[in-house]
Amino acid sequence: SKGKNMFSVKPLCSRQKMMQQYSNDVAVAIADGKKKKRLQWAKKRRAKLDQSSSSSSLTLHYSPCVLERTDVYCSSSAEEDGVLHMMLRIMDNRPQQRNDNNGNDNSSDDEKKIDAMIIENNTSCSENGNDYGEREEFLKKFLCKLASSLFNNEITAKQQQQQQLKNSTTPLLRHVATIVLQDRLRALLKSSSMNAVAFIADGSILPRKSGASNSPMSCPPALPFRAPDETDLSKILNVDMGVLINYLDESYAGSGYLEKMGEQDGRSEGMLQIRGLVVPKGVTLIVGGGYHGKSTLLRTIAAGVYNKVPGDGRERCVTIEDAVTVRAEDGRYVNNCNVSAFISNLPSMPGADGKTNVIDTTKFSTREASGSTSQASNVIDTVEMGASAMLIDEDVSAANFMARDGRMRALVMDESITPLLYRVNGLYISKGISSVVVVGGVGDWLDVPDNVILMNRYMPNDALKKAQSISRQFSYGHVEYAGRGVVHRLPWDRTGTPLQRRPDKSTINGFHDPEVEVLDGGLRIALLGDDVEDDDNDVDQNSKHLEDDEFGTIDMSRCEQLLGNREQLYGCGLCLAWLLGFAKSNPGLGIRDLLARMDEALDGSEGMRDVLQRFPGIMQTDCLHSIENSLWENIGFAYRPRKFEVAMALSRMRGVRLENVPEEDDEAARAEAEAEREAERRKKELLDLWNNRRKGKNKK
Amino acid sequence: SKGKNMFSVKPLCSRQKMMQQYSNDVAVAIADGKKKKRLQWAKKRRAKLDQSSSSSSLTLHYSPCVLERTDVYCSSSAEEDGVLHMMLRIMDNRPQQRNDNNGNDNSSDDEKKIDAMIIENNTSCSENGNDYGEREEFLKKFLCKLASSLFNNEITAKQQQQQQLKNSTTPLLRHVATIVLQDRLRALLKSSSMNAVAFIADGSILPRKSGASNSPMSCPPALPFRAPDETDLSKILNVDMGVLINYLDESYAGSGYLEKMGEQDGRSEGMLQIRGLVVPKGVTLIVGGGYHGKSTLLRTIAAGVYNKVPGDGRERCVTIEDAVTVRAEDGRYVNNCNVSAFISNLPSMPGADGKTNVIDTTKFSTREASGSTSQASNVIDTVEMGASAMLIDEDVSAANFMARDGRMRALVMDESITPLLYRVNGLYISKGISSVVVVGGVGDWLDVPDNVILMNRYMPNDALKKAQSISRQFSYGHVEYAGRGVVHRLPWDRTGTPLQRRPDKSTINGFHDPEVEVLDGGLRIALLGDDVEDDDNDVDQNSKHLEDDEFGTIDMSRCEQLLGNREQLYGCGLCLAWLLGFAKSNPGLGIRDLLARMDEALDGSEGMRDVLQRFPGIMQTDCLHSIENSLWENIGFAYRPRKFEVAMALSRMRGVRLENVPEEDDEAARAEAEAEREAERRKKELLDLWNNRRKGKNKK
Repeated sequence: SKGKNMFSVKPLCSRQKMMQQYSNDVAVAIADGKKKKRLQWAKKRRAKLDQSSSSSSLTLHYSPCVLERTDVYCSSSAEEDGVLHMMLRIMDNRPQQRNDNNGNDNSSDDEKKIDAMIIENNTSCSENGNDYGEREEFLKKFLCKLASSLFNNEITAKQQQQQQLKNSTTPLLRHVATIVLQDRLRALLKSSSMNAVAFIADGSILPRKSGASNSPMSCPPALPFRAPDETDLSKILNVDMGVLINYLDESYAGSGYLEKMGEQDGRSEGMLQIRGLVVPKGVTLIVGGGYHGKSTLLRTIAAGVYNKVPGDGRERCVTIEDAVTVRAEDGRYVNNCNVSAFISNLPSMPGADGKTNVIDTTKFSTREASGSTSQASNVIDTVEMGASAMLIDEDVSAANFMARDGRMRALVMDESITPLLYRVNGLYISKGISSVVVVGGVGDWLDVPDNVILMNRYMPNDALKKAQSISRQFSYGHVEYAGRGVVHRLPWDRTGTPLQRRPDKSTINGFHDPEVEVLDGGLRIALLGDDVEDDDNDVDQNSKHLEDDEFGTIDMSRCEQLLGNREQLYGCGLCLAWLLGFAKSNPGLGIRDLLARMDEALDGSEGMRDVLQRFPGIMQTDCLHSIENSLWENIGFAYRPRKFEVAMALSRMRGVRLENVPEEDDEAARAEAEAEREAERRKKELLDLWNNRRKGKNKK
Repeated sequence: SKGKNMFSVKPLCSRQKMMQQYSNDVAVAIADGKKKKRLQWAKKRRAKLDQSSSSSSLTLHYSPCVLERTDVYCSSSAEEDGVLHMMLRIMDNRPQQRNDNNGNDNSSDDEKKIDAMIIENNTSCSENGNDYGEREEFLKKFLCKLASSLFNNEITAKQQQQQQLKNSTTPLLRHVATIVLQDRLRALLKSSSMNAVAFIADGSILPRKSGASNSPMSCPPALPFRAPDETDLSKILNVDMGVLINYLDESYAGSGYLEKMGEQDGRSEGMLQIRGLVVPKGVTLIVGGGYHGKSTLLRTIAAGVYNKVPGDGRERCVTIEDAVTVRAEDGRYVNNCNVSAFISNLPSMPGADGKTNVIDTTKFSTREASGSTSQASNVIDTVEMGASAMLIDEDVSAANFMARDGRMRALVMDESITPLLYRVNGLYISKGISSVVVVGGVGDWLDVPDNVILMNRYMPNDALKKAQSISRQFSYGHVEYAGRGVVHRLPWDRTGTPLQRRPDKSTINGFHDPEVEVLDGGLRIALLGDDVEDDDNDVDQNSKHLEDDEFGTIDMSRCEQLLGNREQLYGCGLCLAWLLGFAKSNPGLGIRDLLARMDEALDGSEGMRDVLQRFPGIMQTDCLHSIENSLWENIGFAYRPRKFEVAMALSRMRGVRLENVPEEDDEAARAEAEAEREAERRKKELLDLWNNRRKGKNKK
């Protein structure tokens, strides 16, 4: 059956592994031509890498074998039920010398990690496995090891048998059941009956051991999550798990909150009931005191786009895949981004020729965005890439981007920033983009939500009614019209909608045949290209030279949903390099289409191999001889990123230049424009009304 | 005359230099003992460094000669007037083989940089210089070169004469005059008649070329700054410049705004009048629309703690030296910080033993602080280190830390965060710490300021009256008492005042004899110690091992006043290493005292040499032979940081543990405590009043 690619969030990486990675910051190498020095630099780096590899045993080379993390799943069709498909994709690029003896001494290396590791390419490996070819034999043994590692059993060469495989099916199936459950829950979210952004099951352990850890806090002190009673936010979901239901972890969170099997009421045996909190579509606020669990809940939602392994504590918390965290990111690189929905009406500056210049915020570029501009760009990028939900935490947002209240409006009339507060409703109504916003300080937000979750001592409550009452009670000098704030609920107009962009010719040519390097302990990546004598855009050379050192680097340190650490960051770099290469041969496609093609390619039978074939440096590394020893250590060295993270990497790459894809002037667009003009007219009427009222007030 | 140490903010570093630094990320080498691997890692790094140094001509080793940047100044006493003191401190650690032939071929290396470079140790070098010793001869020639570089003149060995020296005095004196002016302006700020935080002269060019650049934007489009008319915020300052007045740059900002000489009205010839905007002590708001220049003004104030070179555009903008930028810094490491003034009343968690645990926020520690917690810690650190002003930009602040309005208070009663808004007045009244706050969104701030600067199209206006009127007009449901918001103006109580801390024994022992390394293209530093068999704190090993990889690293990427880039960052690391060494032999001293001692040592006759002597690795590097060639390139490789930045580095170093210095129970403290108890009582009365009122209101 076809490979369905999913990802589990990896639990803690082992210390040893991290150590090795740290000592080997220079991983592989993408970038602009025409830079002799840069090439020299890349060569020197590579030379260093080669030197150290020959001399030191600590050094770890990434192997040419790529194990792609595609999860295990169990087909659900009637005749196939119970057949386990383990999706393990091994890209084996060694010539011929395969060897079964790989990595015996490494089996205790990283249980946690292997626990999250999954399984195989186009190979349906049922429990009663039969006719293995040579490759299948290899994979079977590999799988055997993998399974035994799950238990940390001692294994000998003799025990690597069918027997062993059978013994280890239970935990494997537990893993499978957990993943399948999450996929089904996620499918339920999208169903028209739920129409939700996220689901947090009762009994989940949301807090992590520490801010940097993916492991759950122990319980106690952690409190199992429990959705509030008597509210629409709580729901009981029914999931048909088939025989897999027997493999779900019964010890889940003290089992006090465990789902009941649906046998008693005449449902089929495999039915599961799970109660939990539903985060509906629309604008949802998470409010509450500091340290009462607001941000933890939002992070759980953010992590819900990935599947979690058993024991994570959040393995029954799911979110629609295209929910994207949006935060302030001052210093971010921005190129040709239409931020006019949020930033407009900039003051003019006298030009050198005596005329005045006004910065056009429909094509905004900067090398160092401010807090508010960066967050505006992040929202717009998210809209452009087609996300259906934004996750926003006031704690890491620019205050002046989030809201502006009546008093500030009274003092400062000439304002350039339209805060997000005024836009969230329009975004949902016009674009269908939901927002989940953690708010702690600014009460104006209470005017806009469709749902309010109040966190009190780590427990959620439905506070919509109270919030609405407070919103009504305090008029606050806001402009109100027919009981709803006019200014707060601006319609989303077409001019603010970002056009599709694509990397321009100079970018594509500049970064061809690149190498990907992970910098800074896994916070940034750099793309470094060959030194090509390419004269056709010498004009730009000066501007590029200006701050050459940063050219091609990508700061992803504040892309919070990149939960797979440096492995996923590296995967991001690889995918981006692939994307740029693909863009070269497909100049008509915008980023969104390019990303769709990328996902298609990755979901295809060749998967990561296609991406990697663009990097001869990876495929032909000199540690071919040690492949058996390094295979284990290198499992999952590149995790597949979501397309959103790849888009983030592209738009943050210093030196990248994006151009608009010519717009198609179709019927629908014209109709939309007409509707908008109508909306504009109505808005203007309201504003006039407001102005008249104010004038009236002032006269008093 | 004694060395007065000042700093100029360095203009753009040359591309070439940056390139070299970038290609040589591993600069020098600090760390905890007991970590074999870490040592191995350090050794490997060093080995790589050595290899590349012998093979590649691109590689740049920092030289053992240290040129400390202590500025030029001119003594002002009557009999010495006109004598130029050039403070150039060269730490020459080469055995004996000094050579005049150094760096001729490098004179065109970096004009910009040399332009900012200054001059000499305990050596008063007057224009009519006489009796040079051997060292003085060397310095004279060096100076000669330096001077000629300022002009970019071609020089030959023959021309290195007194003649040449004379020709070059004018630009040198221009530089001196600019620095002296800034020092005198800064002295005026502190005088009782002004009592101000900062001064921004008319005609200054505040905006920079780009966010990353220290160079001024060209004019036009930049508008010269002009303080508002008819307001107390504008002042004319009189500065006695002596004969140096003739060397001030007349071409300053189109000279339309230039100061007039005071001759006509019978004042002495050297008097200068400068008009500009004064930022008084107390709570000052900078308000205005987005992109109207708020943050640019704040950044000018932040950079005002350093002296600027002629042509910077801000060379007549000064700020008191101990003004510290405070921003959110999520992910920051915090150890034993008393954040109870801002964060308290955390919800309890069930403990493992069945009892409930409450986190004690008077000794708060975390590996990954949230946005609000990190900013609270930053404020508290600033208070502890004795800063007298905080510079805060809403754009890079945590919204829930900055303010919470009446509506949110109505919805969420159980709040753990006391926002800064409620504390700024108390901080100024009790601790004398002024605040300059850029506010764009939250009108509640209008209840607290002593001064309001409204930026409109890059020009400042005095908006205090308007703000006060708006504050009065909108009651906003805030609790008001006798016309002043009670909740907004909390007194600063003694329990929230941080005790002095100091690094504990394990920290001092763990980081002895460290090496300093600049990581990540100049954003972080790491301290790496020797591998010592030191058994007395094995107990901690587990906790340390937990996330070993980060141990000793210091993320300074969001310490915005570190304007000297990687050179100053490196200086920070060196000073921190010195501080830890000094703390070992002086266990009774708190950080504040340690920093004072550090400044004393740096101001002393030995200066940076004393700091560097703790690093045998630097002093005995193997590139001794190439010292002449590298001296020029290496000028200013380590810039002196302010003590505040050193304190920031210490408190951010992962793995550091700080303990409280036992408090002295003196009379004054007891009296203060008494006064506070009284204040507490009054506050409680007011709160009771408020509660009663609210109850009354609710009954309605």
